[in-house]
Amino acid sequence: MPPIDGSSLSRRAWLTTTSGVIAAGLLKTQSDAFRLDAQEVPTIAEGAVDGSNLPVRIVSEVGSRAPGEQPKRFLRASDVDLSSSSRSPLQDFHGIITPADLHFERHHAGVPDIAHEDHELLIHGMVDRPMVFRMADLKRYPSISRIYFIECSGNGGGVYSRERMPTEISVQQIDGLISTSEWTGVPLAWVLREVGVRPGASWLIAEGSDGAALNRSVPLEKGMDDALLAYGQNGEAIRPEQGYPLRLMLPGWEGNTQVKWLRRIEVTDRPAMTREETSKYTDPLGDGTARQFSFVMDAKSVITFPSYPYVLPDRGWWEIKGLAWTGRGSITRVEVSTDGGRRWVDAELQQPVLPMATVRFRHLWNWDGRDAVILSRATDETGYVQPTVHQLWEARGERTSYHQNHQRAWRVASDGGVTFGLGELV
Amino acid sequence: MPPIDGSSLSRRAWLTTTSGVIAAGLLKTQSDAFRLDAQEVPTIAEGAVDGSNLPVRIVSEVGSRAPGEQPKRFLRASDVDLSSSSRSPLQDFHGIITPADLHFERHHAGVPDIAHEDHELLIHGMVDRPMVFRMADLKRYPSISRIYFIECSGNGGGVYSRERMPTEISVQQIDGLISTSEWTGVPLAWVLREVGVRPGASWLIAEGSDGAALNRSVPLEKGMDDALLAYGQNGEAIRPEQGYPLRLMLPGWEGNTQVKWLRRIEVTDRPAMTREETSKYTDPLGDGTARQFSFVMDAKSVITFPSYPYVLPDRGWWEIKGLAWTGRGSITRVEVSTDGGRRWVDAELQQPVLPMATVRFRHLWNWDGRDAVILSRATDETGYVQPTVHQLWEARGERTSYHQNHQRAWRVASDGGVTFGLGELV
Repeated sequence: MPPIDGSSLSRRAWLTTTSGVIAAGLLKTQSDAFRLDAQEVPTIAEGAVDGSNLPVRIVSEVGSRAPGEQPKRFLRASDVDLSSSSRSPLQDFHGIITPADLHFERHHAGVPDIAHEDHELLIHGMVDRPMVFRMADLKRYPSISRIYFIECSGNGGGVYSRERMPTEISVQQIDGLISTSEWTGVPLAWVLREVGVRPGASWLIAEGSDGAALNRSVPLEKGMDDALLAYGQNGEAIRPEQGYPLRLMLPGWEGNTQVKWLRRIEVTDRPAMTREETSKYTDPLGDGTARQFSFVMDAKSVITFPSYPYVLPDRGWWEIKGLAWTGRGSITRVEVSTDGGRRWVDAELQQPVLPMATVRFRHLWNWDGRDAVILSRATDETGYVQPTVHQLWEARGERTSYHQNHQRAWRVASDGGVTFGLGELV
Repeated sequence: MPPIDGSSLSRRAWLTTTSGVIAAGLLKTQSDAFRLDAQEVPTIAEGAVDGSNLPVRIVSEVGSRAPGEQPKRFLRASDVDLSSSSRSPLQDFHGIITPADLHFERHHAGVPDIAHEDHELLIHGMVDRPMVFRMADLKRYPSISRIYFIECSGNGGGVYSRERMPTEISVQQIDGLISTSEWTGVPLAWVLREVGVRPGASWLIAEGSDGAALNRSVPLEKGMDDALLAYGQNGEAIRPEQGYPLRLMLPGWEGNTQVKWLRRIEVTDRPAMTREETSKYTDPLGDGTARQFSFVMDAKSVITFPSYPYVLPDRGWWEIKGLAWTGRGSITRVEVSTDGGRRWVDAELQQPVLPMATVRFRHLWNWDGRDAVILSRATDETGYVQPTVHQLWEARGERTSYHQNHQRAWRVASDGGVTFGLGELV
């Protein structure tokens, strides 16, 4: 077991002996085979609430959360519009799975209310047999399930500009546009083989059935590799906000390309140069040029605990926890620094580490009660190391709004208060 | 790609050209860089509903399911009482994760409404330092996350008796007392080391804070191995029905031992012989003796599609799908028979296959339209093979109510109707 400072745990020896209703209840549940001295059998700790006397619920068709546990997505007041987003409460999560009703949202014209039986996917263009697939058709294909993250390429954009580097901002507000689910669907390659892609084809144009008819150009190579026509999410039907009844999954790629409410795929020999890949979702660089079709999300990690607005109540052992991911396969290493980036130590990675999925990392830290700046940095299987913000500024300039995967820092003050810590600190 | 009978898919070539509102909407989203001939750009398939004209929802703090997708747990009318159960809709699931609000329930005195800050765990008995842990104390320990199944040992009890073998019964009704989640918590071994287990101790008595004060005896060896004090489920706080705020996880063991609303662990040198391990949760055998402390759930598999009451609309290729699991590590093989158990072929196992977790299996079947009986059987890493019902009857007699992991069969009639098929069929 890792070292634990016992003094930080409550260590009230149990004092009370059983009596009255509780003892009677306990005795009734135990057989004579176990000789009991009722005066010496403890039941509940002194001062604890006796759950066996609480109001109860009986079984139900659909469960609900405990009254005291109501995690919520974050909506920016300025952002509650048809084109808007909501962010996952990363600080509330354990493990890697995102509950489906808390998966982040990003849509450009609201969430359409599509009926399963009405939805169809048209695949046409440079194909031998243009075809229309009802959902029942697609579900008759063999299916696969995979745990994948989806991240909006605008995630973290709020902590990149040198001019505006907020300190009182939560990990949810900064980086809540990342979620992870077990997705189920049909490999797109199988369906493309069915329609017969013609020689010379090199791109797919994917289009959604939302009010924006959002469309993106995707290299055919990705479509023939690990792209998925997904209809399942965390065991159930994909949620409306994630594209019900059908979403194009492009593992590891920016969320915007993974077209929701997918209704059309056109096979072509060139990109369509749509709005979402020309005026948006491109990276203006420092030298005046722009990077287009970034597609793959680079390696990144975020510390979810401790983070603003948590206040550490006392010094001693604390587990620094967070999530890491990369669009280029698997995370191989996450390092944590507790001194502003001078020294780094390897965090523990929760097994199994799955490709194109988030991985939970943990590092046990003995906080001495003094000012500290904690950071994490991820390395992926290609050897790529999550850069500092200075490296990113140098490589890309400061005008880009996407793909800001630089290291994040939290400042832990001597009073235990935690604030976001980039800017002059790191 | 596995063979698909193309004739079973709708193959209506797309006919309509764009016009009016839809075409205008599409054009607005595309840049001039992509030269469009509006008369030749297809948008949606003929007859398809145009999602871009549908009512929309904007972003929300907590999402909800699509109106047409409302999976529900199954409650037996006779079973809606303080001591009751609800069953997971296995036939509706994809992948292996069970949505938290559809995780099966089994409780003996209702679901207590416990507040996180009120709950305490007492560990005492043969220990050096009896201790009380608040939830905040436990959460300060290092944590781990694992994907594990939980199965009630009474699962499948409705299809064991030779006298009563129903045919019009769903996989949810038969086997819905199994669910799988990503669980997060503290290894019990770490906490036991903190309290200091005394020499001679060999058992733990775990007690819940429900009205039944449900308690079970657990060998200390399991507690020092992979037992978990779990507070997280699928990324969020454990749900009330699964023991909020704290559940004892004993990976691979029968659900009843994995005490919910865990409030007390007593370290002892003998089992407590509680009601739940003497009058219940034991297996009366054919020779008049009883098997006690079965604990480990043996290897099992169930076909979730096709299953009653589904009707296959036509012959041709269908994917037989299901779930397999074992309490003894990992599933190594699932075989499927489509001729009542005479010939068996290996099903495909969805990777990664995780220990003490369900695994999704799939087998593509070309149904010739004639009467067929389909079965599955699982093999685990110990070499154990899921038995037939005849083997189980022979080994255990017909009076036992628990641990009925025999092979299940579905009969597919020539009209496509699917019914449960044990009894005289297999």
